[in-house]
Amino acid sequence: MIVALSGGIGGAKLALGLSRLLPPRELTIVGNIGDDFEHFGLYITPDLDTLLYTLGGLDNQELGWGRRDETWSFMETLAALGGETWFRLGDRDLALHIERTRLLRNGEMLSAITANLCDRLGVAQRVLPASDDRVPTRVLTDQGWLGFQHWFVGLRAAPAVRALDFAGAAEARAVPEAIRAISAADAVVICPSNPFISIEPILAIPGFREALAATRAPVIAVSPIIGGRAVKGPTAKMMMEFGQTPSARAVAERYGDLIDGFVADETDAGTLSGLRPRVTFAPTLMTTLADKEALARIVLKAARELQ
Amino acid sequence: MIVALSGGIGGAKLALGLSRLLPPRELTIVGNIGDDFEHFGLYITPDLDTLLYTLGGLDNQELGWGRRDETWSFMETLAALGGETWFRLGDRDLALHIERTRLLRNGEMLSAITANLCDRLGVAQRVLPASDDRVPTRVLTDQGWLGFQHWFVGLRAAPAVRALDFAGAAEARAVPEAIRAISAADAVVICPSNPFISIEPILAIPGFREALAATRAPVIAVSPIIGGRAVKGPTAKMMMEFGQTPSARAVAERYGDLIDGFVADETDAGTLSGLRPRVTFAPTLMTTLADKEALARIVLKAARELQ
Repeated sequence: MIVALSGGIGGAKLALGLSRLLPPRELTIVGNIGDDFEHFGLYITPDLDTLLYTLGGLDNQELGWGRRDETWSFMETLAALGGETWFRLGDRDLALHIERTRLLRNGEMLSAITANLCDRLGVAQRVLPASDDRVPTRVLTDQGWLGFQHWFVGLRAAPAVRALDFAGAAEARAVPEAIRAISAADAVVICPSNPFISIEPILAIPGFREALAATRAPVIAVSPIIGGRAVKGPTAKMMMEFGQTPSARAVAERYGDLIDGFVADETDAGTLSGLRPRVTFAPTLMTTLADKEALARIVLKAARELQ
Repeated sequence: MIVALSGGIGGAKLALGLSRLLPPRELTIVGNIGDDFEHFGLYITPDLDTLLYTLGGLDNQELGWGRRDETWSFMETLAALGGETWFRLGDRDLALHIERTRLLRNGEMLSAITANLCDRLGVAQRVLPASDDRVPTRVLTDQGWLGFQHWFVGLRAAPAVRALDFAGAAEARAVPEAIRAISAADAVVICPSNPFISIEPILAIPGFREALAATRAPVIAVSPIIGGRAVKGPTAKMMMEFGQTPSARAVAERYGDLIDGFVADETDAGTLSGLRPRVTFAPTLMTTLADKEALARIVLKAARELQ
């Protein structure tokens, strides 16, 4: 059984690749919930949504985010009414947020709701939120502490990050199935997501670091940095703001003892000598479905070699 | 200045007719809020919405309710997710509910929000909710007390009505502008809405009956019953359930001393003799815009004759 820790878009690509190589019940994906926020009174969990849409074949490939066959009447009308349009919600996407919020208000757990949505959306793999509690990431900038989505979407991640806070993480409870899955796994894959805002919010919840340290399964991270640049999002920018040179090496060092293996892009060959984790080089840019499958195959092979 | 008291669709038709004959600032419409409810955490006020859409030329003429150029991606997707679909919300309509709810949560008054929405939707007339407080109509049926929309939309108004309750009405505060408008009016028009569930929830709020009794302006009601049948909705059915024979006469008697004039359909000529209010017969079925204007013209003429 393979467990993948994932943020949104980049992580979901590798999760999709893995899903095409493994029997559905042998893949568990633990999604970041640090990006979650309330908007218009709706509970929105962008990384879980991206995972569900991607694994369900419902992702919007033109936009690169959101849902396929999307329409925008709601947003268009909201703009005409003078409403808040900084966070774009498609008409179909809205249905997911409304239904999830309704079930949360009924007292259902996010993990149970996510399992139910997997069924509805034809996702046969197990997708788990890292926690059923709220762990909202906050970003310290020159403008003070900002809610994650306010910074990430509202301000396009432009203000320099001075610190991150995973509010409530210390008191949050890891979803037990996620911890059990890590303990019983044949391999744990840390997807090529932003370490700071996608993976570390998961690791900040008590139980995850301990489970990763204790599991007999190899833990393999895939670099989100290729040739010093992030494929998408502010990973490289944040590294610079944290005084680091953006590189695959810096990602591997950030994960430190947590990982046994590291998959970096071929273009970074020669930059990763002397690291403790075993390094594999591979084409890590995932554009086509074939790319995703090929990278997933390399990751699984590297894991088998570490077992 | 003319004040119209109105429920949803039938009332909005006459309000539209009046709006085409009067300078915009000389027409104030007081809308019923007894139908309002929360759905998915959104505050929905169907009668005000119908008034806004109709007066703004945004009403959906194919459906006869809701908003023009509507799309249904949200509802379609919600159904696929197993969500609650008994109350149909179009993608564009949703934007109005989301924005209104956001403003209410910010502490704005429904009346101020409605004024702002009038501006946004190009409604030059003044549309006022009867109150800024909540006055949710409840319906007593053989299934017990039901929320209004649960009964009206969810159960298609099928369960027989044994009693109505305008919860909170006794403690609600009438919107002051509405009371002032009635006091200063040249005429007050009670639109051809359901007396029981559209007009009486307004009248149940302290101040309205008193203002109607005190104003020097004539109060003229237009019958929603033509030849013993309601043009739309459960008015005739409810009359039978209340042990009355559905008729224009029963409507006039229900309003009693409140009204000085009554406009009934030509087909009801001969059935309204001996009433105190002065009766005018007219074609009251409003199909075309010309019908609406023509009826509005007759109502205004009858009002002038009573002044």
